[in-house]
Amino acid sequence: MNDTGETAVRLGRISYLNVLPIYYPIESGNVRGPLSVVSAPPAELNLLARAGKLDVSACSSFEYASAADDYFLVPDLAIGSRGHVRSVLLLSRLPVAKLDGKSVRVSYQTHTSVALLKLFLQQRVGVDVTYTTGDVTRALASGERPDAFLAIGDEAMRLSAHPDYPHRWDLGSVWLDWTALPFIFGVWIARRAAAAENPGPVREACRALVEAKDWSKARPELVAELAAAQGGFTVPDMRTYFEGLVYDFGEREKDGLSVFFEKLEGARIIPKAPKLQFLEM
Amino acid sequence: MNDTGETAVRLGRISYLNVLPIYYPIESGNVRGPLSVVSAPPAELNLLARAGKLDVSACSSFEYASAADDYFLVPDLAIGSRGHVRSVLLLSRLPVAKLDGKSVRVSYQTHTSVALLKLFLQQRVGVDVTYTTGDVTRALASGERPDAFLAIGDEAMRLSAHPDYPHRWDLGSVWLDWTALPFIFGVWIARRAAAAENPGPVREACRALVEAKDWSKARPELVAELAAAQGGFTVPDMRTYFEGLVYDFGEREKDGLSVFFEKLEGARIIPKAPKLQFLEM
Repeated sequence: MNDTGETAVRLGRISYLNVLPIYYPIESGNVRGPLSVVSAPPAELNLLARAGKLDVSACSSFEYASAADDYFLVPDLAIGSRGHVRSVLLLSRLPVAKLDGKSVRVSYQTHTSVALLKLFLQQRVGVDVTYTTGDVTRALASGERPDAFLAIGDEAMRLSAHPDYPHRWDLGSVWLDWTALPFIFGVWIARRAAAAENPGPVREACRALVEAKDWSKARPELVAELAAAQGGFTVPDMRTYFEGLVYDFGEREKDGLSVFFEKLEGARIIPKAPKLQFLEM
Repeated sequence: MNDTGETAVRLGRISYLNVLPIYYPIESGNVRGPLSVVSAPPAELNLLARAGKLDVSACSSFEYASAADDYFLVPDLAIGSRGHVRSVLLLSRLPVAKLDGKSVRVSYQTHTSVALLKLFLQQRVGVDVTYTTGDVTRALASGERPDAFLAIGDEAMRLSAHPDYPHRWDLGSVWLDWTALPFIFGVWIARRAAAAENPGPVREACRALVEAKDWSKARPELVAELAAAQGGFTVPDMRTYFEGLVYDFGEREKDGLSVFFEKLEGARIIPKAPKLQFLEM
Protein backbone atom coordinates (compact mmCIF):
# COMPACT_ATOMS: atom_id res chain seq x y z
CA MET A 1 0.00 0.00 0.00
CA ASN A 2 1.20 3.53 -0.61
CA ASP A 3 0.30 6.68 1.35
CA THR A 4 -3.03 7.15 -0.34
CA GLY A 5 -4.15 3.63 0.41
CA GLU A 6 -3.69 2.42 -3.16
CA THR A 7 -1.56 -0.57 -3.91
CA ALA A 8 1.16 0.69 -6.26
CA VAL A 9 2.78 -1.85 -8.55
CA ARG A 10 6.54 -1.38 -8.67
CA LEU A 11 7.46 -1.24 -12.36
CA GLY A 12 11.07 -1.66 -13.47
CA ARG A 13 12.43 0.36 -16.37
CA ILE A 14 15.75 0.55 -18.13
CA SER A 15 17.02 3.77 -19.61
CA TYR A 16 17.38 2.54 -23.19
CA LEU A 17 15.78 4.41 -26.06
CA ASN A 18 14.04 1.30 -27.30
CA VAL A 19 11.64 1.22 -24.31
CA LEU A 20 10.71 4.88 -24.59
CA PRO A 21 7.47 4.04 -26.48
CA ILE A 22 6.30 2.02 -23.47
CA TYR A 23 7.46 4.24 -20.59
CA TYR A 24 6.93 7.71 -21.97
CA PRO A 25 3.11 7.50 -22.07
CA ILE A 26 3.09 6.34 -18.44
CA GLU A 27 5.67 8.79 -17.11
CA SER A 28 4.02 11.69 -18.94
CA GLY A 29 0.64 10.83 -17.46
CA ASN A 30 -0.95 10.13 -20.84
CA VAL A 31 -1.63 6.57 -19.78
CA ARG A 32 -2.58 5.94 -16.14
CA GLY A 33 -2.21 2.87 -13.99
CA PRO A 34 -1.37 1.89 -10.41
CA LEU A 35 2.33 2.17 -11.06
CA SER A 36 5.48 3.50 -9.48
CA VAL A 37 8.47 3.40 -11.78
CA VAL A 38 11.91 2.19 -10.62
CA SER A 39 14.76 2.97 -13.02
CA ALA A 40 17.92 0.88 -12.96
CA PRO A 41 20.50 -0.68 -15.28
CA PRO A 42 19.32 -4.01 -16.74
CA ALA A 43 21.45 -6.26 -14.53
CA GLU A 44 20.22 -4.44 -11.43
CA LEU A 45 16.59 -4.74 -12.51
CA ASN A 46 17.09 -8.48 -12.68
CA LEU A 47 18.46 -8.52 -9.13
CA LEU A 48 15.62 -6.32 -7.87
CA ALA A 49 13.02 -8.55 -9.51
CA ARG A 50 14.59 -11.71 -8.14
CA ALA A 51 14.73 -10.14 -4.68
CA GLY A 52 10.99 -9.38 -4.85
CA LYS A 53 11.57 -5.61 -4.98
CA LEU A 54 9.86 -5.17 -8.33
CA ASP A 55 6.47 -6.54 -9.35
CA VAL A 56 6.46 -5.95 -13.07
CA SER A 57 9.52 -5.18 -15.16
CA ALA A 58 11.13 -5.05 -18.55
CA CYS A 59 13.72 -7.79 -18.74
CA SER A 60 15.90 -9.43 -21.33
CA SER A 61 14.77 -12.63 -23.00
CA PHE A 62 17.78 -14.37 -21.52
CA GLU A 63 16.79 -13.31 -17.99
CA TYR A 64 13.34 -14.81 -18.51
CA ALA A 65 14.97 -18.03 -19.72
CA SER A 66 17.14 -18.09 -16.61
CA ALA A 67 14.34 -17.67 -14.07
CA ALA A 68 11.10 -18.51 -15.87
CA ASP A 69 9.66 -20.31 -12.83
CA ASP A 70 9.49 -17.02 -10.94
CA TYR A 71 7.80 -15.04 -13.68
CA PHE A 72 4.80 -14.73 -15.95
CA LEU A 73 5.20 -13.01 -19.29
CA VAL A 74 3.06 -9.91 -19.83
CA PRO A 75 0.84 -10.69 -22.85
CA ASP A 76 0.86 -8.61 -26.05
CA LEU A 77 4.09 -6.79 -25.27
CA ALA A 78 7.75 -7.46 -26.14
CA ILE A 79 10.70 -5.78 -27.88
CA GLY A 80 11.78 -7.48 -31.03
CA SER A 81 12.91 -6.93 -34.55
CA ARG A 82 11.96 -8.34 -37.92
CA GLY A 83 15.29 -8.05 -39.65
CA HIS A 84 17.79 -5.23 -39.23
CA VAL A 85 17.72 -3.94 -35.68
CA ARG A 86 20.68 -1.51 -36.18
CA SER A 87 21.65 -1.58 -32.51
CA VAL A 88 22.98 -5.13 -32.08
CA LEU A 89 26.00 -5.63 -34.31
CA LEU A 90 28.95 -7.94 -34.70
CA LEU A 91 31.72 -5.72 -36.08
CA SER A 92 34.77 -7.54 -37.39
CA ARG A 93 38.07 -6.80 -39.06
CA LEU A 94 37.80 -10.11 -40.91
CA PRO A 95 35.26 -12.15 -42.89
CA VAL A 96 33.34 -14.19 -40.37
CA ALA A 97 34.89 -17.61 -41.15
CA LYS A 98 38.33 -16.13 -40.47
CA LEU A 99 37.33 -15.51 -36.85
CA ASP A 100 37.88 -19.21 -36.12
CA GLY A 101 40.30 -19.44 -33.20
CA LYS A 102 40.18 -15.68 -32.58
CA SER A 103 38.62 -13.79 -29.71
CA VAL A 104 35.54 -11.62 -29.80
CA ARG A 105 34.99 -8.80 -27.32
CA VAL A 106 31.53 -8.56 -25.80
CA SER A 107 29.93 -6.08 -23.46
CA TYR A 108 29.02 -7.18 -19.95
CA GLN A 109 25.74 -5.26 -20.39
CA THR A 110 23.86 -7.84 -22.42
CA HIS A 111 23.21 -11.53 -21.98
CA THR A 112 20.63 -11.95 -24.72
CA SER A 113 22.73 -10.49 -27.53
CA VAL A 114 25.82 -12.41 -26.43
CA ALA A 115 23.80 -15.63 -26.40
CA LEU A 116 22.48 -14.85 -29.89
CA LEU A 117 26.00 -14.13 -31.12
CA LYS A 118 27.28 -17.41 -29.66
CA LEU A 119 24.50 -19.37 -31.36
CA PHE A 120 25.22 -17.65 -34.67
CA LEU A 121 28.99 -18.19 -34.65
CA GLN A 122 28.85 -21.73 -33.28
CA GLN A 123 25.86 -23.21 -35.07
CA ARG A 124 25.19 -21.13 -38.15
CA VAL A 125 28.71 -20.12 -39.18
CA GLY A 126 30.61 -22.98 -37.53
CA VAL A 127 33.60 -21.20 -36.01
CA ASP A 128 35.10 -21.59 -32.54
CA VAL A 129 35.90 -18.30 -30.90
CA THR A 130 36.67 -17.23 -27.36
CA TYR A 131 34.81 -14.37 -25.74
CA THR A 132 36.36 -11.62 -23.66
CA THR A 133 34.38 -9.03 -21.74
CA GLY A 134 35.17 -5.34 -21.73
CA ASP A 135 34.23 -1.83 -22.68
CA VAL A 136 34.76 -1.60 -26.44
CA THR A 137 34.57 2.17 -26.84
CA ARG A 138 37.30 2.60 -24.22
CA ALA A 139 39.41 -0.15 -25.80
CA LEU A 140 39.22 1.42 -29.26
CA ALA A 141 39.97 4.87 -27.87
CA SER A 142 43.12 3.51 -26.23
CA GLY A 143 44.33 2.11 -29.55
CA GLU A 144 43.37 -1.53 -29.00
CA ARG A 145 42.11 -3.30 -32.09
CA PRO A 146 40.26 -6.51 -31.13
CA ASP A 147 39.56 -8.78 -34.12
CA ALA A 148 35.85 -8.42 -33.61
CA PHE A 149 33.39 -7.14 -31.05
CA LEU A 150 29.71 -7.08 -30.24
CA ALA A 151 28.27 -3.59 -30.01
CA ILE A 152 24.80 -2.83 -28.73
CA GLY A 153 22.59 0.22 -28.30
CA ASP A 154 23.98 3.68 -28.88
CA GLU A 155 27.49 2.24 -29.07
CA ALA A 156 26.46 0.10 -32.05
CA MET A 157 25.03 3.10 -33.84
CA ARG A 158 28.17 5.14 -33.14
CA LEU A 159 30.68 2.43 -34.12
CA SER A 160 28.84 0.86 -37.06
CA ALA A 161 30.85 2.83 -39.63
CA HIS A 162 34.25 2.33 -37.95
CA PRO A 163 36.76 2.05 -40.82
CA ASP A 164 38.80 -0.73 -39.18
CA TYR A 165 35.69 -2.95 -38.90
CA PRO A 166 34.23 -3.27 -42.40
CA HIS A 167 32.54 -6.64 -41.75
CA ARG A 168 29.25 -5.83 -40.10
CA TRP A 169 26.60 -8.37 -39.13
CA ASP A 170 23.29 -7.09 -37.78
CA LEU A 171 22.12 -9.80 -35.39
CA GLY A 172 18.44 -9.03 -35.95
CA SER A 173 18.95 -9.64 -39.63
CA VAL A 174 21.13 -12.68 -38.96
CA TRP A 175 18.28 -14.21 -36.97
CA LEU A 176 15.63 -13.49 -39.59
CA ASP A 177 17.92 -14.96 -42.23
CA TRP A 178 18.37 -18.08 -40.12
CA THR A 179 14.85 -18.74 -38.89
CA ALA A 180 12.53 -16.48 -40.92
CA LEU A 181 11.17 -15.34 -37.54
CA PRO A 182 11.37 -12.11 -35.52
CA PHE A 183 13.93 -11.98 -32.74
CA ILE A 184 12.67 -11.04 -29.28
CA PHE A 185 15.33 -9.17 -27.33
CA GLY A 186 13.19 -8.25 -24.36
CA VAL A 187 9.93 -9.04 -22.65
CA TRP A 188 7.99 -7.70 -19.71
CA ILE A 189 7.52 -10.01 -16.76
CA ALA A 190 5.24 -10.02 -13.73
CA ARG A 191 6.55 -11.84 -10.67
CA ARG A 192 4.29 -14.79 -9.95
CA ALA A 193 4.32 -13.97 -6.26
CA ALA A 194 3.23 -10.37 -6.94
CA ALA A 195 0.47 -11.56 -9.27
CA ALA A 196 -0.80 -13.88 -6.51
CA GLU A 197 -0.63 -11.29 -3.71
CA ASN A 198 -1.90 -8.33 -5.61
CA PRO A 199 -3.83 -9.70 -8.60
CA GLY A 200 -6.01 -6.73 -9.53
CA PRO A 201 -3.38 -3.99 -9.55
CA VAL A 202 -0.78 -6.21 -11.26
CA ARG A 203 -3.20 -6.91 -14.11
CA GLU A 204 -4.19 -3.28 -14.28
CA ALA A 205 -0.53 -2.28 -14.48
CA CYS A 206 0.08 -4.77 -17.29
CA ARG A 207 -2.94 -3.44 -19.17
CA ALA A 208 -1.49 0.07 -18.81
CA LEU A 209 1.77 -1.11 -20.42
CA VAL A 210 -0.12 -2.49 -23.41
CA GLU A 211 -2.17 0.69 -23.58
CA ALA A 212 1.08 2.69 -23.57
CA LYS A 213 2.32 0.62 -26.52
CA ASP A 214 -0.83 1.44 -28.48
CA TRP A 215 -0.63 5.12 -27.52
CA SER A 216 2.90 5.35 -28.93
CA LYS A 217 2.07 3.28 -31.99
CA ALA A 218 -0.49 5.92 -32.93
CA ARG A 219 2.15 8.68 -32.58
CA PRO A 220 5.30 7.50 -34.42
CA GLU A 221 6.47 11.04 -35.20
CA LEU A 222 6.27 12.16 -31.58
CA VAL A 223 8.15 9.06 -30.43
CA ALA A 224 10.93 9.71 -32.98
CA GLU A 225 11.18 13.34 -31.83
CA LEU A 226 11.30 12.47 -28.12
CA ALA A 227 13.91 9.80 -28.67
CA ALA A 228 16.02 12.07 -30.86
CA ALA A 229 15.93 14.76 -28.16
CA GLN A 230 16.97 12.28 -25.45
CA GLY A 231 19.56 10.34 -27.34
CA GLY A 232 21.30 12.99 -29.42
CA PHE A 233 20.25 11.43 -32.72
CA THR A 234 18.36 12.91 -35.65
CA VAL A 235 14.60 12.46 -35.97
CA PRO A 236 14.92 10.53 -39.29
CA ASP A 237 17.46 8.19 -37.67
CA MET A 238 15.09 7.51 -34.81
CA ARG A 239 12.15 7.05 -37.17
CA THR A 240 14.12 4.37 -39.03
CA TYR A 241 15.24 2.85 -35.75
CA PHE A 242 11.72 2.44 -34.37
CA GLU A 243 10.37 1.23 -37.71
CA GLY A 244 12.75 -1.73 -37.36
CA LEU A 245 11.43 -2.66 -33.94
CA VAL A 246 8.27 -4.50 -33.04
CA TYR A 247 6.51 -4.20 -29.68
CA ASP A 248 3.77 -6.74 -30.32
CA PHE A 249 4.00 -10.26 -28.94
CA GLY A 250 1.95 -12.16 -31.49
CA GLU A 251 2.20 -15.74 -32.72
CA ARG A 252 5.30 -15.20 -34.86
CA GLU A 253 7.06 -13.38 -32.04
CA LYS A 254 6.21 -16.26 -29.68
CA ASP A 255 7.59 -18.71 -32.23
CA GLY A 256 10.75 -16.60 -32.53
CA LEU A 257 11.31 -16.59 -28.78
CA SER A 258 10.60 -20.33 -28.43
CA VAL A 259 13.05 -21.16 -31.23
CA PHE A 260 15.69 -18.98 -29.53
CA PHE A 261 15.19 -20.88 -26.26
CA GLU A 262 15.35 -24.24 -28.06
CA LYS A 263 18.60 -23.27 -29.76
CA LEU A 264 20.03 -22.11 -26.43
CA GLU A 265 19.17 -25.49 -24.95
CA GLY A 266 20.65 -27.25 -28.01
CA ALA A 267 23.90 -25.31 -27.58
CA ARG A 268 23.85 -26.04 -23.81
CA ILE A 269 23.87 -22.34 -23.01
CA ILE A 270 20.82 -22.93 -20.80
CA PRO A 271 19.90 -26.31 -19.28
CA LYS A 272 16.32 -26.35 -20.58
CA ALA A 273 14.16 -24.20 -22.86
CA PRO A 274 11.41 -22.67 -20.67
CA LYS A 275 7.81 -22.63 -21.80
CA LEU A 276 6.25 -19.25 -22.47
CA GLN A 277 3.83 -18.79 -19.59
CA PHE A 278 1.68 -15.69 -19.75
CA LEU A 279 -0.13 -13.80 -17.04
CA GLU A 280 -3.83 -14.51 -17.41
CA MET A 281 -5.48 -11.20 -18.07
CA MET B 1 7.10 -4.16 -90.07
CA ASN B 2 4.55 -6.93 -89.60
CA ASP B 3 1.69 -7.89 -91.94
CA THR B 4 -0.59 -5.08 -90.84
CA GLY B 5 2.04 -2.42 -91.43
CA GLU B 6 2.76 -1.90 -87.72
CA THR B 7 6.27 -2.14 -86.41
CA ALA B 8 6.14 -4.89 -83.78
CA VAL B 9 8.75 -4.81 -81.05
CA ARG B 10 10.13 -8.29 -80.37
CA LEU B 11 9.87 -8.81 -76.60
CA GLY B 12 11.78 -11.62 -74.92
CA ARG B 13 10.25 -13.54 -72.05
CA ILE B 14 11.38 -16.34 -69.78
CA SER B 15 8.97 -18.88 -68.42
CA TYR B 16 9.65 -18.24 -64.72
CA LEU B 17 6.80 -17.53 -62.33
CA ASN B 18 8.48 -14.36 -61.12
CA VAL B 19 7.87 -12.53 -64.41
CA LEU B 20 4.21 -13.52 -64.61
CA PRO B 21 3.09 -10.13 -63.21
CA ILE B 22 4.75 -8.38 -66.16
CA TYR B 23 3.84 -10.76 -69.02
CA TYR B 24 0.36 -11.89 -68.05
CA PRO B 25 -1.29 -8.48 -68.54
CA ILE B 26 0.27 -8.22 -72.02
CA GLU B 27 -0.39 -11.79 -73.13
CA SER B 28 -3.98 -11.64 -71.84
CA GLY B 29 -4.62 -8.43 -73.77
CA ASN B 30 -5.30 -6.39 -70.62
CA VAL B 31 -2.38 -4.12 -71.46
CA ARG B 32 -1.74 -3.33 -75.13
CA GLY B 33 1.43 -2.33 -76.91
CA PRO B 34 3.25 -2.91 -80.23
CA LEU B 35 4.67 -6.20 -79.01
CA SER B 36 5.28 -9.73 -80.20
CA VAL B 37 6.43 -12.05 -77.44
CA VAL B 38 9.32 -14.52 -77.94
CA SER B 39 9.62 -17.15 -75.20
CA ALA B 40 12.94 -18.85 -74.57
CA PRO B 41 15.16 -20.09 -71.74
CA PRO B 42 17.24 -17.29 -70.18
CA ALA B 43 20.56 -18.21 -71.83
CA GLU B 44 18.88 -18.34 -75.23
CA LEU B 45 17.22 -14.96 -74.71
CA ASN B 46 20.68 -13.51 -74.13
CA LEU B 47 21.93 -15.01 -77.41
CA LEU B 48 18.86 -13.77 -79.29
CA ALA B 49 19.27 -10.26 -77.89
CA ARG B 50 22.99 -10.17 -78.70
CA ALA B 51 22.23 -11.39 -82.22
CA GLY B 52 19.74 -8.53 -82.72
CA LYS B 53 16.76 -10.89 -82.83
CA LEU B 54 15.05 -9.32 -79.84
CA ASP B 55 14.46 -5.62 -79.25
CA VAL B 56 13.35 -5.55 -75.63
CA SER B 57 13.82 -8.38 -73.17
CA ALA B 58 13.95 -9.53 -69.60
CA CYS B 59 17.54 -10.38 -68.73
CA SER B 60 19.59 -11.22 -65.69
CA SER B 61 21.55 -8.50 -63.93
CA PHE B 62 24.72 -10.39 -64.77
CA GLU B 63 23.89 -10.38 -68.48
CA TYR B 64 23.44 -6.61 -68.40
CA ALA B 65 26.83 -6.30 -66.64
CA SER B 66 28.40 -8.45 -69.36
CA ALA B 67 27.10 -6.47 -72.34
CA ALA B 68 26.00 -3.08 -71.00
CA ASP B 69 27.33 -1.23 -74.05
CA ASP B 70 24.70 -2.89 -76.24
CA TYR B 71 21.75 -2.15 -74.00
CA PHE B 72 19.70 0.49 -72.27
CA LEU B 73 17.88 -0.40 -69.07
CA VAL B 74 14.09 -0.04 -69.17
CA PRO B 75 13.23 2.55 -66.47
CA ASP B 76 10.94 1.81 -63.52
CA LEU B 77 11.04 -1.96 -63.94
CA ALA B 78 13.23 -4.71 -62.45
CA ILE B 79 12.92 -7.92 -60.42
CA GLY B 80 14.41 -7.72 -57.00
CA SER B 81 13.94 -8.63 -53.39
CA ARG B 82 14.17 -6.81 -50.11
CA GLY B 83 15.23 -9.65 -47.90
CA HIS B 84 14.05 -13.25 -48.18
CA VAL B 85 13.46 -14.17 -51.82
CA ARG B 86 12.70 -17.87 -51.06
CA SER B 87 13.79 -19.01 -54.51
CA VAL B 88 17.57 -18.45 -54.40
CA LEU B 89 19.09 -20.61 -51.67
CA LEU B 90 22.42 -21.98 -50.60
CA LEU B 91 21.62 -25.36 -49.02
CA SER B 92 24.43 -26.95 -47.08
CA ARG B 93 25.11 -30.02 -44.99
CA LEU B 94 27.56 -27.97 -42.91
CA PRO B 95 27.79 -24.60 -41.17
CA VAL B 96 29.05 -22.16 -43.76
CA ALA B 97 32.61 -21.72 -42.43
CA LYS B 98 33.08 -25.50 -42.70
CA LEU B 99 32.63 -25.29 -46.47
CA ASP B 100 36.21 -23.99 -46.76
CA GLY B 101 38.03 -26.24 -49.24
CA LYS B 102 34.82 -28.05 -50.21
CA SER B 103 32.90 -27.90 -53.45
CA VAL B 104 29.53 -26.31 -54.05
CA ARG B 105 27.22 -27.47 -56.83
CA VAL B 106 25.60 -24.73 -58.89
CA SER B 107 23.06 -24.79 -61.66
CA TYR B 108 24.11 -23.80 -65.16
CA GLN B 109 20.83 -21.88 -65.41
CA THR B 110 21.83 -18.78 -63.50
CA HIS B 111 24.79 -16.43 -63.70
CA THR B 112 23.49 -13.74 -61.37
CA SER B 113 22.79 -16.02 -58.42
CA VAL B 114 26.10 -17.83 -58.82
CA ALA B 115 27.92 -14.50 -58.88
CA LEU B 116 26.08 -13.41 -55.74
CA LEU B 117 26.94 -16.70 -54.03
CA LYS B 118 30.61 -16.32 -54.96
CA LEU B 119 30.71 -12.79 -53.55
CA PHE B 120 29.06 -13.95 -50.35
CA LEU B 121 31.32 -16.94 -49.70
CA GLN B 122 34.52 -15.21 -50.77
CA GLN B 123 34.10 -11.73 -49.33
CA ARG B 124 31.49 -11.88 -46.61
CA VAL B 125 32.15 -15.33 -45.13
CA GLY B 126 35.78 -15.71 -46.18
CA VAL B 127 35.91 -19.31 -47.37
CA ASP B 128 37.49 -20.74 -50.51
CA VAL B 129 35.30 -23.23 -52.30
CA THR B 130 35.29 -24.75 -55.74
CA TYR B 131 32.19 -24.70 -57.90
CA THR B 132 30.88 -27.59 -59.95
CA THR B 133 28.00 -27.35 -62.39
CA GLY B 134 25.19 -29.85 -62.62
CA ASP B 135 21.56 -30.68 -62.15
CA VAL B 136 21.02 -30.90 -58.39
CA THR B 137 17.61 -32.55 -58.37
CA ARG B 138 18.94 -35.38 -60.54
CA ALA B 139 22.09 -35.70 -58.41
CA LEU B 140 20.08 -35.97 -55.18
CA ALA B 141 17.68 -38.47 -56.76
CA SER B 142 20.62 -40.68 -57.74
CA GLY B 143 21.89 -40.71 -54.15
CA GLU B 144 24.67 -38.14 -54.51
CA ARG B 145 25.09 -35.88 -51.51
CA PRO B 146 27.15 -32.81 -52.45
CA ASP B 147 28.31 -30.79 -49.42
CA ALA B 148 26.31 -27.81 -50.55
CA PHE B 149 24.43 -26.55 -53.55
CA LEU B 150 22.75 -23.48 -54.95
CA ALA B 151 19.08 -23.98 -55.74
CA ILE B 152 16.96 -21.48 -57.61
CA GLY B 153 13.35 -21.11 -58.67
CA ASP B 154 10.93 -23.96 -58.20
CA GLU B 155 13.81 -26.27 -57.31
CA ALA B 156 14.71 -24.04 -54.34
CA MET B 157 11.14 -24.12 -53.10
CA ARG B 158 11.00 -27.91 -53.47
CA LEU B 159 14.38 -28.65 -51.86
CA SER B 160 14.40 -26.01 -49.11
CA ALA B 161 13.25 -28.47 -46.45
CA HIS B 162 15.55 -31.33 -47.51
CA PRO B 163 16.55 -33.09 -44.27
CA ASP B 164 20.17 -33.62 -45.31
CA TYR B 165 20.67 -29.88 -45.87
CA PRO B 166 19.71 -28.14 -42.63
CA HIS B 167 21.91 -25.06 -43.23
CA ARG B 168 19.90 -22.78 -45.45
CA TRP B 169 20.98 -19.31 -46.59
CA ASP B 170 18.51 -17.22 -48.55
CA LEU B 171 20.67 -15.09 -50.83
CA GLY B 172 18.17 -12.24 -50.96
CA SER B 173 18.34 -12.03 -47.20
CA VAL B 174 22.14 -12.48 -47.23
CA TRP B 175 22.41 -9.44 -49.49
CA LEU B 176 20.10 -7.26 -47.41
CA ASP B 177 22.04 -8.27 -44.30
CA TRP B 178 25.29 -7.31 -46.02
CA THR B 179 24.38 -4.06 -47.75
CA ALA B 180 21.00 -2.97 -46.33
CA LEU B 181 19.89 -2.68 -49.97
CA PRO B 182 17.52 -4.64 -52.22
CA PHE B 183 19.06 -7.18 -54.56
CA ILE B 184 18.19 -6.88 -58.24
CA PHE B 185 18.16 -10.29 -59.91
CA GLY B 186 16.80 -9.18 -63.26
CA VAL B 187 16.19 -6.13 -65.38
CA TRP B 188 14.57 -5.39 -68.71
CA ILE B 189 16.80 -4.12 -71.47
CA ALA B 190 16.19 -2.42 -74.80
CA ARG B 191 18.87 -2.95 -77.44
CA ARG B 192 20.46 0.40 -78.24
CA ALA B 193 20.32 -0.36 -81.95
CA ALA B 194 16.60 -1.14 -81.78
CA ALA B 195 15.94 2.05 -79.81
CA ALA B 196 17.75 4.04 -82.50
CA GLU B 197 16.06 2.36 -85.47
CA ASN B 198 12.59 2.16 -84.06
CA PRO B 199 12.38 4.78 -81.30
CA GLY B 200 8.63 5.29 -81.03
CA PRO B 201 7.50 1.67 -80.83
CA VAL B 202 10.39 0.66 -78.53
CA ARG B 203 9.40 3.37 -76.05
CA GLU B 204 5.75 2.44 -76.38
CA ALA B 205 6.62 -1.20 -75.71
CA CYS B 206 8.62 -0.24 -72.61
CA ARG B 207 5.74 1.89 -71.35
CA ALA B 208 3.46 -1.13 -71.80
CA LEU B 209 5.78 -3.21 -69.60
CA VAL B 210 5.60 -0.62 -66.82
CA GLU B 211 1.85 -0.40 -67.28
CA ALA B 212 1.68 -4.19 -66.96
CA LYS B 213 3.60 -3.97 -63.66
CA ASP B 214 1.06 -1.48 -62.32
CA TRP B 215 -1.85 -3.56 -63.57
CA SER B 216 -0.59 -6.58 -61.62
CA LYS B 217 0.33 -4.56 -58.55
CA ALA B 218 -3.33 -3.56 -58.31
CA ARG B 219 -4.41 -7.23 -58.47
CA PRO B 220 -2.18 -9.21 -56.07
CA GLU B 221 -4.79 -11.90 -55.42
CA LEU B 222 -5.29 -12.62 -59.12
CA VAL B 223 -1.53 -12.82 -59.65
CA ALA B 224 -1.16 -15.30 -56.77
CA GLU B 225 -4.01 -17.42 -58.19
CA LEU B 226 -2.61 -17.44 -61.74
CA ALA B 227 0.87 -18.32 -60.53
CA ALA B 228 -0.45 -21.08 -58.26
CA ALA B 229 -2.39 -22.57 -61.18
CA GLN B 230 0.67 -22.48 -63.46
CA GLY B 231 3.32 -23.58 -61.00
CA GLY B 232 1.54 -26.20 -58.95
CA PHE B 233 1.85 -24.21 -55.71
CA THR B 234 -0.79 -23.05 -53.26
CA VAL B 235 -2.26 -19.56 -53.50
CA PRO B 236 -0.98 -18.58 -50.02
CA ASP B 237 2.53 -19.76 -51.00
CA MET B 238 2.42 -17.63 -54.12
CA ARG B 239 1.05 -14.65 -52.22
CA THR B 240 4.01 -14.84 -49.83
CA TYR B 241 6.38 -15.36 -52.74
CA PHE B 242 5.27 -12.25 -54.62
CA GLU B 243 5.15 -10.18 -51.44
CA GLY B 244 8.89 -10.78 -51.13
CA LEU B 245 9.61 -9.51 -54.63
CA VAL B 246 9.83 -5.94 -55.84
CA TYR B 247 9.27 -4.90 -59.46
CA ASP B 248 10.05 -1.22 -59.04
CA PHE B 249 13.42 0.19 -60.03
CA GLY B 250 13.69 3.15 -57.67
CA GLU B 251 16.72 4.80 -56.09
CA ARG B 252 17.38 2.06 -53.55
CA GLU B 253 17.11 -0.63 -56.22
CA LYS B 254 19.56 1.31 -58.40
CA ASP B 255 21.94 1.58 -55.46
CA GLY B 256 21.58 -2.17 -54.84
CA LEU B 257 22.42 -3.01 -58.46
CA SER B 258 25.36 -0.58 -58.56
CA VAL B 259 26.82 -2.03 -55.34
CA PHE B 260 26.46 -5.54 -56.80
CA PHE B 261 28.37 -4.48 -59.91
CA GLU B 262 31.08 -2.80 -57.82
CA LYS B 263 31.53 -5.91 -55.70
CA LEU B 264 31.71 -8.06 -58.87
CA GLU B 265 34.47 -5.78 -60.14
CA GLY B 266 36.21 -5.88 -56.74
CA ALA B 267 36.16 -9.69 -56.83
CA ARG B 268 37.35 -9.65 -60.47
CA ILE B 269 34.28 -11.57 -61.59
CA ILE B 270 33.67 -8.85 -64.19
CA PRO B 271 36.40 -6.53 -65.54
CA LYS B 272 34.54 -3.30 -64.83
CA ALA B 273 31.29 -2.26 -63.13
CA PRO B 274 29.01 -0.85 -65.85
CA LYS B 275 27.05 2.35 -65.31
CA LEU B 276 23.29 2.08 -65.21
CA GLN B 277 22.18 3.69 -68.46
CA PHE B 278 18.46 4.03 -68.94
CA LEU B 279 16.37 4.39 -72.06
CA GLU B 280 15.14 7.97 -72.22
CA MET B 281 11.39 7.84 -72.15
